[in-house]
Amino acid sequence: MAFTYFCAMLSISKRGQEMPASPIRKLVPFAETAKKKGIRVYHLNIGQPDIETPAAALDAVRRADFKVLEYSHSAGNESYRKKLTTYYKGVGIDVSANEIIITTGGSEAILFGFMTCLDAGDEVIIPEPFYANYNGFAVEAGVKVVPITSSIDSGFALPAISEFEKAITPRTKAIVLCNPNNPTGYLYSRTEMETLRQIVKDHSLYLFADEAYREFCYAGEHCSAMHLKGIEDNVILMDTISKRYSACGGRIGAFVTKNKMVLDAAMKFAQARLSPPSFAQILGEAAVDLPGDYFDHTKAEYKKRRDTLVERLNRIPGVFCPNPGGAFYAMAKLPVDDADVFCQWLLESFSMNNETLMLAPASGFYSTPGLGKNEVRLAYVLNTEAIHKAMDCLEAALKVYPGKTN
Amino acid sequence: MAFTYFCAMLSISKRGQEMPASPIRKLVPFAETAKKKGIRVYHLNIGQPDIETPAAALDAVRRADFKVLEYSHSAGNESYRKKLTTYYKGVGIDVSANEIIITTGGSEAILFGFMTCLDAGDEVIIPEPFYANYNGFAVEAGVKVVPITSSIDSGFALPAISEFEKAITPRTKAIVLCNPNNPTGYLYSRTEMETLRQIVKDHSLYLFADEAYREFCYAGEHCSAMHLKGIEDNVILMDTISKRYSACGGRIGAFVTKNKMVLDAAMKFAQARLSPPSFAQILGEAAVDLPGDYFDHTKAEYKKRRDTLVERLNRIPGVFCPNPGGAFYAMAKLPVDDADVFCQWLLESFSMNNETLMLAPASGFYSTPGLGKNEVRLAYVLNTEAIHKAMDCLEAALKVYPGKTN
Repeated sequence: MAFTYFCAMLSISKRGQEMPASPIRKLVPFAETAKKKGIRVYHLNIGQPDIETPAAALDAVRRADFKVLEYSHSAGNESYRKKLTTYYKGVGIDVSANEIIITTGGSEAILFGFMTCLDAGDEVIIPEPFYANYNGFAVEAGVKVVPITSSIDSGFALPAISEFEKAITPRTKAIVLCNPNNPTGYLYSRTEMETLRQIVKDHSLYLFADEAYREFCYAGEHCSAMHLKGIEDNVILMDTISKRYSACGGRIGAFVTKNKMVLDAAMKFAQARLSPPSFAQILGEAAVDLPGDYFDHTKAEYKKRRDTLVERLNRIPGVFCPNPGGAFYAMAKLPVDDADVFCQWLLESFSMNNETLMLAPASGFYSTPGLGKNEVRLAYVLNTEAIHKAMDCLEAALKVYPGKTN
Repeated sequence: MAFTYFCAMLSISKRGQEMPASPIRKLVPFAETAKKKGIRVYHLNIGQPDIETPAAALDAVRRADFKVLEYSHSAGNESYRKKLTTYYKGVGIDVSANEIIITTGGSEAILFGFMTCLDAGDEVIIPEPFYANYNGFAVEAGVKVVPITSSIDSGFALPAISEFEKAITPRTKAIVLCNPNNPTGYLYSRTEMETLRQIVKDHSLYLFADEAYREFCYAGEHCSAMHLKGIEDNVILMDTISKRYSACGGRIGAFVTKNKMVLDAAMKFAQARLSPPSFAQILGEAAVDLPGDYFDHTKAEYKKRRDTLVERLNRIPGVFCPNPGGAFYAMAKLPVDDADVFCQWLLESFSMNNETLMLAPASGFYSTPGLGKNEVRLAYVLNTEAIHKAMDCLEAALKVYPGKTN
């Protein structure tokens, strides 16, 4: 039998190979094994809040009266976008309904930003540690992530302006800022935001503002990128209702900008995927009408948890946890050789009273190899009682972990 | 005032510029103006079915009892994926739950396929006319669409195998086949599917099978790409519940393949966007349990509409409409100079008894410039009474349209 042509093999694309696997999910099999052994695992590893989704917003979905679950407008329902302008007004952001594109989660808003503003080979500067999925969207768009390191020793404050200047090249097109920050919980000050304002203005860069955790600030007022004057065309707000209303599964976010050129181009990406999910748009619209004190309760709960977590962490010998000003994450430095190994060991080889905890090793949030090796991220998405028990486990674990460093 | 550096302008990415605007939506402003003048517009232009979403499936969402709207698994709820295997079994497709990734609409399944299997510069062959949004996903992935023309005169049958052979280059990585077809309504026969099987096997290509309209076949059995033997690793099924259950707004689809390498890579794209929408997964899962005759009713209704539409079209002098074997679209050749101009004229300058109709000009579905200039796509998503009225309008319009050609 003779082949008269070259028979190529089926292969995966380069980007499919380069696409990073979720750094958090690689520990999941170890957690599953622990649970099968009957061990209770306290999940401080993921940003899935336990706070109840507002009943009134869920009820709006349940009561919605329609016969056909139709496509919505590609930019999202107009009624929802109009309602959202009220919400934004309340947080000092003045936008109109046609400056908003409703997206499928904040994830899609990030993807639209990368796709619309950046070409393959372009560079985006992101202070590290950063939300690991930015890497994924960068691979999809063929964009190079250039990290600027922020340090746990300074509580993850914005790196000096000189660090940005050093990183900027002719291919630099944007800076991503997550404020308050995931994974650090750091809340950028107005002064820091003004510094960024100057950088993006001087270098004509886009500022991609991921403000998923806007509602959860404990150390002062939130300064949105949309509050900055004179860079209205540079700023793209990448928003989501996931954390705000504990509605992660709804997959509703928003791409917001005053830059008409960007908006028009992003709309073409929105049209290609037809529309954002209809059910959770109803939820998002109803949520805007929640009583004014809704966030007070949620914020007070998160603050109580933060205080408990940070206090407990810093009481453990060798552990350092800067007090995060926002979001529901904290980063801690542990007296361990390798946080990846330690986190796996917690699930595989440790338990106390049949309990253990799951943490996210910080290495997955750094882009520079080797950084964050003895750091972990903790999400305080459990109540204070559970946090205390998890900290009891951590304290005991650090006493017996073979790779302890001090 | 002196600038010491070059002040670049903010710009849109090349792909943002190349991204095609929706060819159908460009007529929307004219339809809106007509409506403001009090004219009733029969919408035969879009694939938004008027068929009611099954009440039992909607009720499942309304009754779902949970307190927190959580992220689902990135591949979709396991219970839903397991249930889906039952549905697939019923249509002769043998897959397991871990060969399915639930996507945000069929759109995301297409995007995952392009991203996972194709690199920038790679080529994908698609018989034209084709679903216009494939162009958008191709731009996002930097992929080149290579069209092979099918003709209205042969009812849009699969082009000869020699046409494929001519189009294949070393950069060709995949063929996209939509069966039954949008926009033509053509139902590919088993013989044609076997031809394709041979092509993808001989040239080691992926076969991206868009089977959104699988349930709606009137001229014989549906032959799925997943039924073809010996190319299990080549086939990726890009599925959706949008048309099957009239649930377009749910944004739930599926990426299905037996190719483990492709599945593993696609999962990384799925993880980056966290999860598909939770509400409509409940709907999709409940829909699998609809009574066995559910599709009989829907199919009978669509068939009645098709028969009405095609019969009326072919009775109009100078109009030719091949009888489509599936989906809910028909393509018709009209005796007009330019279907784009005619469709706009219908909205801008024509009405009969205060009524007119909106059609989709076919040019947007062809990739080769100049093709389809006197063709339109009609979606029979209105009941037969409305179809009759729309055809009355069309018949009258063609008598007075200034650009009539015969």
